[in-house]
Amino acid sequence: MLVLITYDVNTQTAAGRKRLRKVAKECTNYGQRVQNSVFECQMDATKCRQVKNILENIIDQDMDSLRFYYLGEKYKNKVEHIGAKPGFDVTDTLIL
Amino acid sequence: MLVLITYDVNTQTAAGRKRLRKVAKECTNYGQRVQNSVFECQMDATKCRQVKNILENIIDQDMDSLRFYYLGEKYKNKVEHIGAKPGFDVTDTLIL
Repeated sequence: MLVLITYDVNTQTAAGRKRLRKVAKECTNYGQRVQNSVFECQMDATKCRQVKNILENIIDQDMDSLRFYYLGEKYKNKVEHIGAKPGFDVTDTLIL
Repeated sequence: MLVLITYDVNTQTAAGRKRLRKVAKECTNYGQRVQNSVFECQMDATKCRQVKNILENIIDQDMDSLRFYYLGEKYKNKVEHIGAKPGFDVTDTLIL
């Protein structure tokens, strides 16, 4: 299924900027960055629980937030991109 | 239907920061800010075309991007939030 992960990390402190880098780095292990704080991840429920757990432990839950959108399998007509750096279909780029 | 709007605006210039403020301000007319660059908008297709057209004309399509995710009507179990509650505007406090 396609899972969209979006995050807000408060970068007013050095610790916050470190959390932001960690979150972004971790997300790259699971999916495709389509915008600065938006990743599209093609993964099953097990992988999803895994990344959720990892990210939950990185963020400061009083200052930062994560959102997960479960787009299912039939997502191709549910996503539209306008402007720079168009995202591409993550299912086409998987190298196994 | 629920439409998720996410955006990346390049804020390296004053013009970019102005575009960012305009995009955010426009989005508040159509939905609920859930993260800094993520809005959830409950709207019909007409409204959606309207906001898309407005935002397309604000952004610099070589530097910025918009993404629209169409979550349909049955979206309640498709969204999960972790961490700080949405509803704050950090646009003015971003450290770039």
